[in-house]
Amino acid sequence: MKKVLLNENELPKRWYNALPDLPELLPAPLNPETKQPVKPEQLEQIFSRECVNQEMSDKRFIDIPEELLEAYAMWRPTPLVRAENFEKAIGARAKIFYKNESVSPPGSHKPNTALAQAYYNKREGIKKLVTETGAGQWGSALSFAGAQFGMEVKVYMVKVSYEQKPYRKFLMEAWGGKCYPSPTDMTQIGRKIREEFPGTSGSLGIAISEAVEDAATHSDTKYAIGSVANHALLHQTIIGLETEKQLNKEDVKPTILIGCVGGGSNFGGFMLPFLPRKLNGENIRFIAVEPKACPTFTKGKYRYDYGDTGKVTPLFKMFTLGSSFVPPAIHAGGLRYHGDSPILSLLLKHNMIEAQSYYQKEVFKAGILFARTEGILPAPETNHAIKAVVEEAKKATEEDIIVFNFSGHGHFDLAAYDAYFNGEMRDYEYPEEEIERAIKNLPEI
Amino acid sequence: MKKVLLNENELPKRWYNALPDLPELLPAPLNPETKQPVKPEQLEQIFSRECVNQEMSDKRFIDIPEELLEAYAMWRPTPLVRAENFEKAIGARAKIFYKNESVSPPGSHKPNTALAQAYYNKREGIKKLVTETGAGQWGSALSFAGAQFGMEVKVYMVKVSYEQKPYRKFLMEAWGGKCYPSPTDMTQIGRKIREEFPGTSGSLGIAISEAVEDAATHSDTKYAIGSVANHALLHQTIIGLETEKQLNKEDVKPTILIGCVGGGSNFGGFMLPFLPRKLNGENIRFIAVEPKACPTFTKGKYRYDYGDTGKVTPLFKMFTLGSSFVPPAIHAGGLRYHGDSPILSLLLKHNMIEAQSYYQKEVFKAGILFARTEGILPAPETNHAIKAVVEEAKKATEEDIIVFNFSGHGHFDLAAYDAYFNGEMRDYEYPEEEIERAIKNLPEI
Repeated sequence: MKKVLLNENELPKRWYNALPDLPELLPAPLNPETKQPVKPEQLEQIFSRECVNQEMSDKRFIDIPEELLEAYAMWRPTPLVRAENFEKAIGARAKIFYKNESVSPPGSHKPNTALAQAYYNKREGIKKLVTETGAGQWGSALSFAGAQFGMEVKVYMVKVSYEQKPYRKFLMEAWGGKCYPSPTDMTQIGRKIREEFPGTSGSLGIAISEAVEDAATHSDTKYAIGSVANHALLHQTIIGLETEKQLNKEDVKPTILIGCVGGGSNFGGFMLPFLPRKLNGENIRFIAVEPKACPTFTKGKYRYDYGDTGKVTPLFKMFTLGSSFVPPAIHAGGLRYHGDSPILSLLLKHNMIEAQSYYQKEVFKAGILFARTEGILPAPETNHAIKAVVEEAKKATEEDIIVFNFSGHGHFDLAAYDAYFNGEMRDYEYPEEEIERAIKNLPEI
Repeated sequence: MKKVLLNENELPKRWYNALPDLPELLPAPLNPETKQPVKPEQLEQIFSRECVNQEMSDKRFIDIPEELLEAYAMWRPTPLVRAENFEKAIGARAKIFYKNESVSPPGSHKPNTALAQAYYNKREGIKKLVTETGAGQWGSALSFAGAQFGMEVKVYMVKVSYEQKPYRKFLMEAWGGKCYPSPTDMTQIGRKIREEFPGTSGSLGIAISEAVEDAATHSDTKYAIGSVANHALLHQTIIGLETEKQLNKEDVKPTILIGCVGGGSNFGGFMLPFLPRKLNGENIRFIAVEPKACPTFTKGKYRYDYGDTGKVTPLFKMFTLGSSFVPPAIHAGGLRYHGDSPILSLLLKHNMIEAQSYYQKEVFKAGILFARTEGILPAPETNHAIKAVVEEAKKATEEDIIVFNFSGHGHFDLAAYDAYFNGEMRDYEYPEEEIERAIKNLPEI
């Protein structure tokens, strides 16, 4: 067992911004009504000014404010761990390391950007943050961040998850967040949907629309975004920057970096700081892993699409399954998103990253082997990365250094493990027809 | 925010054994039938030989085997953290530190001894470990340890908890442990109780009796104990030994050490390594914190009593509320034990440690303030220690250094937090009459 630790004073002081290093200019987000590039002023209606600046910045490095570094130091730097027991169990010839992002108080990488967004909004005089949440990881991370900076947090939680996953709601409450089952009667769009579809169980798309409307209609309130956006990935690059320092300490060069991808923030934050190595011709591969039930990178199209089902967000150029596609109810709730980060999408288009997809049962099998050998129980999302590690390790040589991002623990996902052991978990076939239908509905741009 | 970290090579290589430093010889455990001192051979029927040696050792330090150090290094050394935000929130003049034992894979201090017991039993050729569990913390720690050393683990879980707290059971299963609702039909005592009391919801006393019978009647099987026993406290002293190194690094001398007490293993493991300082006349206080609903140290008697309700374990000289006392159903399941560690009991008798008791609502209030300021959600048991920290901080001066053991996180106790916020949590009055009745039933020795 080998943990590579960094001290508090080795915490990276700057984030890495990939925008200037991309192989082409990132296509601009478009206004959903005019289909013209969105102006910063429009984005500032819902996001903090500083986050909007970062969203479009051409600076390669952006300083992390001192107060935020102090907040990060609650659990950062996180350990990089050599997974020796797991290596033995799968007969790997390569060395395998994992970056343990599960040690944060909310149990995942999410607070890296939640704290940053809370900090900037607070500094700009905002009193309240709103957001949506599906399974509840992002909502709890933002509640945690709100408590740290003394801000109110209001979370629109998809109604069916609110009812099925009460523990996440309790966690938000413990940190002082307020959580409501969406659609609510607190927004115009929520009321409209409740009227049209009484008894609806909600969706992430509706919850996003409610949160965005809430922010747009209250001057003391802004919207916080958990993934996809450039600034969310930027804040997550602290993961990769730390990992790089830790690998340097061990004097090893990674050859394969692996992470699971929903909106892309944990994978992007992990691998983007290594992008310059690839640009310099180093032998390094980046593997994004997704569920076969929601195969955005492996089966989607690179097109302009809305961020939500309600079509209130800007249009982003990204790999997408179509914003009207509703993925099957797999346990990895964090990977059930129709689109993907525009930055990562552009990198995939240029073959600078690779993508793989797996069924959920094989993914849980890999995660359970990890729990029994390395101790920590992974989140269902993280299990996807672990499955890809197993597959890559089969082909890897003794020269290879595989590093993956352990994005979160599974303490709030035990019902999923029970379903696996009970034989109640099923694999969803790739819903080809639904995806084709949803892609046909994409706007022509 | 200030984390004091140790590297893997600073992990203590020896445990501290308090037995030679006690103010008088520890009274021997007695055979429940003959009432004569138990012989080592009798204890070896249920415990590993090495653990029995340690139970009675007069060596001040005992080496930690290399393989065990490697297993500890999965998450140890654990951080010592300066709780600056919490200090500010309560207006403390003293410095407050906490030792964060919640970072272990099962989320508490319990694996420190679970791994040690699994390791020694494995080395002695044992194939299977059995134990009981109430709320499930100990059962999950032992399942984790079993997975590490390739041993079968069987857990008798109190039936009512098994039904009410399925998440802990799923966690044990994820690590490969087998968990059964007690009373079962797999033991003689289990069958007898099911016959006499059909539909019983079980009790910790019954579950202990089943586990001990299982070990005593199978030659490949031993019993693992989560607290109370001297060797369980011994293995936990790694907590205090690390804490001492960390405080030395910061160049501060602790004046008040605080921990919650159920059977005593987290408090004992934390404070015992500081006992020699007190013996040398240093200004240092040790405060044990318990629930008013189960006030063993503050209202119990120092007498010989059984470890279980079924009266199959040896008799220990300890503070006890009587082995027939059934404490009210507070949320801190780990603090609902009628007795207490014999070592700590002796220290209390000699006024070398102090004891305090609190109601559960005031305790949760303190824990929630901690979660909102320091980030981590504490276990209900840990909330007791935090409440005592708040009270001591009120009286403390700028010279004081308060250090407490953050024994575990509350990820599997969110229903308790919900009860608090819902107003459904109630404070139990100290059940004086029941305790008097139970104490009257104590054997005359």
